[in-house]
Amino acid sequence: MSHTSESKSGDLTKTGMALKHDREWDYELDRIVEAVDERDAKKVGLQFPEGLKRRGPAVTDDLRERLPDDVRVLLSGQPCYGACDLDTYMMRRTDVFVHFGHSPMKESDKIIYVPLFSNVDVEPILEDSLNELADPDENPDVGLVTTAQHMNKFEEMRTWLEERDFDVHTRRGDERLTHEGQVLGCNYASADIDADQVLYVGGGKFHPLGLAMEHPDKRVVIADPVNNAVSIADTEKFLKQRYGAVHRAMDAQKWGVIFCTKIGQGRYDQAEKIVEENDNAYLITMDEVTPDRLRNFDMDAFVNTGCPRITTDDGPRFHKPMLTPGEYEIAVGNEPLDSLSFDTFHGTW
Amino acid sequence: MSHTSESKSGDLTKTGMALKHDREWDYELDRIVEAVDERDAKKVGLQFPEGLKRRGPAVTDDLRERLPDDVRVLLSGQPCYGACDLDTYMMRRTDVFVHFGHSPMKESDKIIYVPLFSNVDVEPILEDSLNELADPDENPDVGLVTTAQHMNKFEEMRTWLEERDFDVHTRRGDERLTHEGQVLGCNYASADIDADQVLYVGGGKFHPLGLAMEHPDKRVVIADPVNNAVSIADTEKFLKQRYGAVHRAMDAQKWGVIFCTKIGQGRYDQAEKIVEENDNAYLITMDEVTPDRLRNFDMDAFVNTGCPRITTDDGPRFHKPMLTPGEYEIAVGNEPLDSLSFDTFHGTW
Repeated sequence: MSHTSESKSGDLTKTGMALKHDREWDYELDRIVEAVDERDAKKVGLQFPEGLKRRGPAVTDDLRERLPDDVRVLLSGQPCYGACDLDTYMMRRTDVFVHFGHSPMKESDKIIYVPLFSNVDVEPILEDSLNELADPDENPDVGLVTTAQHMNKFEEMRTWLEERDFDVHTRRGDERLTHEGQVLGCNYASADIDADQVLYVGGGKFHPLGLAMEHPDKRVVIADPVNNAVSIADTEKFLKQRYGAVHRAMDAQKWGVIFCTKIGQGRYDQAEKIVEENDNAYLITMDEVTPDRLRNFDMDAFVNTGCPRITTDDGPRFHKPMLTPGEYEIAVGNEPLDSLSFDTFHGTW
Repeated sequence: MSHTSESKSGDLTKTGMALKHDREWDYELDRIVEAVDERDAKKVGLQFPEGLKRRGPAVTDDLRERLPDDVRVLLSGQPCYGACDLDTYMMRRTDVFVHFGHSPMKESDKIIYVPLFSNVDVEPILEDSLNELADPDENPDVGLVTTAQHMNKFEEMRTWLEERDFDVHTRRGDERLTHEGQVLGCNYASADIDADQVLYVGGGKFHPLGLAMEHPDKRVVIADPVNNAVSIADTEKFLKQRYGAVHRAMDAQKWGVIFCTKIGQGRYDQAEKIVEENDNAYLITMDEVTPDRLRNFDMDAFVNTGCPRITTDDGPRFHKPMLTPGEYEIAVGNEPLDSLSFDTFHGTW
């Protein structure tokens, strides 16, 4: 996701990743030093999420102190907002490659994934969330989900709720998800549980909004331990934007169909099918999907088969309507308007 | 080069690439169709420079009409401002890959380079340029250079000048350049000739400004057949910006040293040397070097070992001073201020 100029909900700078206490992240330097030693590595690549890139120099300093002089530490300057944003160039060109802050998207001997668990205490915010959750005497069923950086507290959250008589429903989701109860910006299969309410514990609104879009029948309670606020996910503004984009695209003659070349985002068959069936559709391949890159294409609308969050969250920043594959089917009249649903990746690689 | 928001001299939209007459570009469809046939290709990738991306759909339509139904045409959405911007992902994933509008940067059986020569008549602008060139009776020596898209008229230009008693000096330059008399944004070795004046025939000021920076002792006459204007390259504004950036960087503690991963821009040894000698320098690797990507790094200044034109032309758009490797040596006190010179690539790959 590219959140470049404006600060908005969902922006990583509004999550714990950018808070003052990040001095306390555990970068697991021992594991890195050990891997360098074992492999007699000469080049070590480090990739941080956007919100932690500014920590790169300090981590480099700490590593340099502990590594032999002839080992070179490289920082990835590629955009990094999620597990898909693996710097594959750096991965190929370094002997040890460390990706911080996301779950593994691709397993390899060469990659070290350092999860960067948050040290934020979740109990106070769980306490606050009771105001928004149903009374367990009336409706004890509640789903529980969180993000990679709070996974270390997941059992603590579950126990806390169970001790207050909730019947906590959790699920590992599909193979795209590493942990039980984990959500990704593009995958909420861990919330496919038998409860009308889901408690999301984590920073920002980016994940819970996706969750609420994917599960419009569920009430999504946001317990944000980072910004210390409890709220209910409200998808109305999002939905209006989506319907607006679909309507504006209904008159489109020329369609640009985007195939994203990033690992974990490739839905080539879907992109190809659209182009096969529509003579006015053109296949465009790219890694970063940004407004600048699409401006020079003379298209009336775009369908993005890559990251759905680029479409739904960054959509308004593009000069022409940008739709998900499902929304495209509505815009060209293949599906009815009320079939509009959130676009997610289920086990796609 | 990324010229996204503002229109300025050097912008490709101000060159022949974006003019109305581009219907007349020769896309060499026969060559492409033949290659598809020979290789029994199923996927054809097309990469256009930014200024011609809007022509992609029409070229795709023309190709689809002539190719078997099961051949898929893909358009590259990667930024493309020069020969370095080869879409290597697309190159690997297609059976035939066509790069339009630039000279070959990497030779491969799979790549078809279509030069897209301009059909603009150069004689009227040569006539106008006589007002700025020295009288051949007094000083007949003149260098002659042009860009890839006007190479088809190079002999015509030379003959025209010789018929008017000029002694025309031309040179192939080094191995980075494909043609005699050709300049690239990063290489002006073809102007290393024995003449005090150089005539540049081509669109825009991007190339002649680089040429004048590289050869401050020569008068560079710009004959622009696209915008129909003759002028003299004036580097004063550029030089002021460069000195300003160097001065601002003199107080820098933390340096980001950029290694660009693009084909033809890799000066790793240079980047590594800086990091080796400066404990406060950190190696950052990336493909597109943009202000957004560097904003999250907590650096005081940057040294760019990649495309020098990002540094000199886009420099002011970055939040911190961005220097060339030579300028860095001045800023840290290794070289005197008057050693400032234009950064170019000579045969670097």
